[in-house]
Amino acid sequence: MKAVCLLSGGLDSATCLAWALRHGYEPYALSFDYGQRHRVELDAAWKVADALGAAAQRVAKIDLRAFGHSALTDDIDVPKGRDEAEMGHGIPITYVPARNTIFLSFALAWAEVLEASDIIIGVNALDYSGYPDCRPEYIAAFETMANLATRTGVEGRTRVKIHTPLIDLSKADIVRLAAELGVPFGLTHSCYDPDASGRPCGACDSCLLRAKGFREAGVVDR
Amino acid sequence: MKAVCLLSGGLDSATCLAWALRHGYEPYALSFDYGQRHRVELDAAWKVADALGAAAQRVAKIDLRAFGHSALTDDIDVPKGRDEAEMGHGIPITYVPARNTIFLSFALAWAEVLEASDIIIGVNALDYSGYPDCRPEYIAAFETMANLATRTGVEGRTRVKIHTPLIDLSKADIVRLAAELGVPFGLTHSCYDPDASGRPCGACDSCLLRAKGFREAGVVDR
Repeated sequence: MKAVCLLSGGLDSATCLAWALRHGYEPYALSFDYGQRHRVELDAAWKVADALGAAAQRVAKIDLRAFGHSALTDDIDVPKGRDEAEMGHGIPITYVPARNTIFLSFALAWAEVLEASDIIIGVNALDYSGYPDCRPEYIAAFETMANLATRTGVEGRTRVKIHTPLIDLSKADIVRLAAELGVPFGLTHSCYDPDASGRPCGACDSCLLRAKGFREAGVVDR
Repeated sequence: MKAVCLLSGGLDSATCLAWALRHGYEPYALSFDYGQRHRVELDAAWKVADALGAAAQRVAKIDLRAFGHSALTDDIDVPKGRDEAEMGHGIPITYVPARNTIFLSFALAWAEVLEASDIIIGVNALDYSGYPDCRPEYIAAFETMANLATRTGVEGRTRVKIHTPLIDLSKADIVRLAAELGVPFGLTHSCYDPDASGRPCGACDSCLLRAKGFREAGVVDR
């Protein structure tokens, strides 16, 4: 069964792709070139899709820079060395406006063309509670909208379903699941602010959460 | 008050822009370069935004061709000379998968950056009943989702509102409203399949509906 799987090249979305394969889906991996500073992510996405065996991959180029206003696309400094209390407070500067809504909208378009009714996204409500578009109530509302937006919904053939296999997992749970599913950790990329050669900074929120997840799961991050 | 107004360069969206100005909004016009065959539309959008006095205009380049499957982006023939019974039957081949969802998602991103809570879109449920994403229940579902997707929604500052001033109007009603609001008809472009010099074909669904609207409204289309 065809499914569209959003794939950033990070650990979470790679785990989703592996989850899709384990659950018998034929996953179509969708990545975005949105002017992100950490473009090494896109290379990681290609490698992960290839290593795990996605049915196809597309990179959609989109123009989020036109609207700006996030440390992930602008020349704003990515915060470093924050503790969990700081990370947990408010909406982080690394938030990109409406990003998941845009990503899911493209996934919906591709799903409609493929006649797929399953979309998989690696959002996580626990570790990133600051992002409004990672919450279960948001995902449910998107799903309702999606079923009114499309031929599928109107013609009542099948219902669009947004799968969020990681939504209630801690980072350590995700690492354990990824290890169990055989995710190639070494090909994934999590850092918001890698150096020119693509090496992670080790100090941004994403690096710190990844390190903590591996530590708590008792798994070595290759 | 800032508002994001989707502007294709067609008659309907030009009328929305004029409506926004009449209602005291400061409209930020958002157009899309999505590989449409009728690219003269984008020139029309610039001219209309300029003539009416939008606060700013952005053209976001997006990649709908990557997913294909519509006469508006592919090498599929645009249907010509259809009567209304034919137009009213099923979802037309000119439907672009998830297009309004993608357009509204970008509008939502820009609105969030502008700290605007109003988005205006010229969808119409009567003349285009075949498009699933032009129906009031779809718009309501998008609005609900939008209020869960954004900082604004989470922090409870204001509610995102999707305005659809044309949703219940016939094409003739729209022409009358446009005339009353001073829309520069001659700058707008409706045809799905213009010739190389940008002249409308006069036979596609969009040309036929436009002609009928002007005829019924008793207004001359300059």
